[in-house]
Amino acid sequence: MSERADRLTERLRERGLDALLVTNIVNIRYLTGFTGTNALCLVGDGLRAFLTDFRYVEQAEREVSGFDRVQGKRDLLGDLRDLLAPAGARRVGFEDHDVSVHRHGRLRSALPDSVELESAGQLVEGLREVKDEKEIAAIRAAAELATEVLEQLRETGFRGRTERQVAGDFEAEMRARGAEPAFPTIVAAGPNGALPHATPGDATVLPGSLVVVDFGCLLDGYCSDCTRTLASGDPPDEAVAVYELVLRAQEAALGAVRAGAVCREVDGVAREVIAEAGHGDRFGHGLGHGVGLEVHEGPRLTQSAEDSERLEAGNVVSVEPGVYLPGELGVRIEDLVVARDTGPEVLTSFPKTLTIVE
Amino acid sequence: MSERADRLTERLRERGLDALLVTNIVNIRYLTGFTGTNALCLVGDGLRAFLTDFRYVEQAEREVSGFDRVQGKRDLLGDLRDLLAPAGARRVGFEDHDVSVHRHGRLRSALPDSVELESAGQLVEGLREVKDEKEIAAIRAAAELATEVLEQLRETGFRGRTERQVAGDFEAEMRARGAEPAFPTIVAAGPNGALPHATPGDATVLPGSLVVVDFGCLLDGYCSDCTRTLASGDPPDEAVAVYELVLRAQEAALGAVRAGAVCREVDGVAREVIAEAGHGDRFGHGLGHGVGLEVHEGPRLTQSAEDSERLEAGNVVSVEPGVYLPGELGVRIEDLVVARDTGPEVLTSFPKTLTIVE
Repeated sequence: MSERADRLTERLRERGLDALLVTNIVNIRYLTGFTGTNALCLVGDGLRAFLTDFRYVEQAEREVSGFDRVQGKRDLLGDLRDLLAPAGARRVGFEDHDVSVHRHGRLRSALPDSVELESAGQLVEGLREVKDEKEIAAIRAAAELATEVLEQLRETGFRGRTERQVAGDFEAEMRARGAEPAFPTIVAAGPNGALPHATPGDATVLPGSLVVVDFGCLLDGYCSDCTRTLASGDPPDEAVAVYELVLRAQEAALGAVRAGAVCREVDGVAREVIAEAGHGDRFGHGLGHGVGLEVHEGPRLTQSAEDSERLEAGNVVSVEPGVYLPGELGVRIEDLVVARDTGPEVLTSFPKTLTIVE
Repeated sequence: MSERADRLTERLRERGLDALLVTNIVNIRYLTGFTGTNALCLVGDGLRAFLTDFRYVEQAEREVSGFDRVQGKRDLLGDLRDLLAPAGARRVGFEDHDVSVHRHGRLRSALPDSVELESAGQLVEGLREVKDEKEIAAIRAAAELATEVLEQLRETGFRGRTERQVAGDFEAEMRARGAEPAFPTIVAAGPNGALPHATPGDATVLPGSLVVVDFGCLLDGYCSDCTRTLASGDPPDEAVAVYELVLRAQEAALGAVRAGAVCREVDGVAREVIAEAGHGDRFGHGLGHGVGLEVHEGPRLTQSAEDSERLEAGNVVSVEPGVYLPGELGVRIEDLVVARDTGPEVLTSFPKTLTIVE
């Protein structure tokens, strides 16, 4: 794990920063292993300081190594001055996407004027995009658990139950297997499937309709993200045709995932298949996003990505095209995939042929 | 609900602000009723604007009234300029505890130079401290549900189960009753009870020990917060003595809750009872905090509160003294209580005589 702080130090050197104050708690977990909720860390050349308050001191002793552990007051800002001075840090970056204007003011007054505070953007988020094999194993475990949950719910069935009941079944199954939902489960039946972010409601799953199920497991800190569109009995031909179209688009885009691929072009592969079938305006979101400690990370597979944004070996991304016909139905199919030098490694194993669930 | 925006407008006038940009999503829910996750609102004299993106337009139509509803782009900042100009707003406050340094920069460039952006502190949080009767009814329902969960778990029992299993039982019971945990449930058995923020672990609940259970229900957007210290079989005399002490302190402090009471003095009532028994240094946290849409709100009942901080009619606060004997045991007893002009109205009804759970 100390290798992560070393990589960060290199990025700091490139930016001319002596140190980075890390305040985002997910980034702190990534760098130090700490799973509590109140901490700060400082990283720089020869500087590895981790601060938490009295509540978490024991936990930090178990979890955090490679850092000097310091017990601070509940408001940890007051202890920074004494840590920065011996390191001779003058240009200190902070995470400006995380630090509020109010906290920045307090930080500014907690440090001597000789310290320059600089907005450092999302340096740690950048490192997090490339997963090591241990992280990939954790995401794979979370994805396999999602597959088990789907297999279980295929047996249980959901016809005649409401969306909300089915979503509850999914979340109960995740918890029974030791995971938590990575985000609120989406179960959208029939016409509700046309809303990409539908909230499960009192609509009953009727026979012969398509049901979009989008859910993820949080296991040992890492997320999975999986969507399947299932059928409750034989659906009409038009629904099957839309399903087959989205599946073709999804498989084509999966095939384009590899280290070096331009992110916008991977999105374009799916988009083109859907546009050629005349549904170009029915796929109103990006193809996918990175997944890791958070369920939405970089890189983004979307038309708004720059040409310079390319997949790197170790990126783990979702590939989730959809076609949404308002008032009628929606189809979305999503797998998690690792970008490898040799091509895609798909982490989701639940079948994608249209599955009928009674 | 529009009365809330009217009260906010008065506060803005006192501060010389033409408008407030509300970005904190809980504050937006409070002012508008919106329960989605992406929105902004603008409040000022004659200005009631609510912005959300395409995903939430239908939901906003159902939930938000008394505001002009505007559909913006996913990043809603770009649409602010056109809303502020007709209102002639020049001095515009923003929520500096919520807005990141990065977002503030984007906000600044999205607005014309003629608009002065000012840190406005936590104005809406201030309003939220005083609950109306509808809010109190919602918190009462969440507190009653917590009591039902406790009664159920008293029947189920927890001896021989691990802390983690018991915490899981509590959370499953909440969900079975249509609520979610308002925060991760604490179950701390025996010596673990001496850690005020213990995480439930693999420790088994042994006969004759005290078990601290601290949990809350989130129901219809409002939270409850409840702690009971239960006994798994007859505990030793010393444990009973500590329990009786904390209960005396808790009852005394409850009796001091009423509109007009000085917050620091309410804390002092419990602290004095505990200090007189020689355990003054074993009660290392504040007496309580406000509870509402969030489980930690104002006002705070603590020694660090200013003398000017007084309870107002409609405040809903926790009253939760504790005594923690490291390596031995801990006792904490917590009720939710409404400050009324006439005195306290306690919302938790589970008994506080030491309950033995097999």
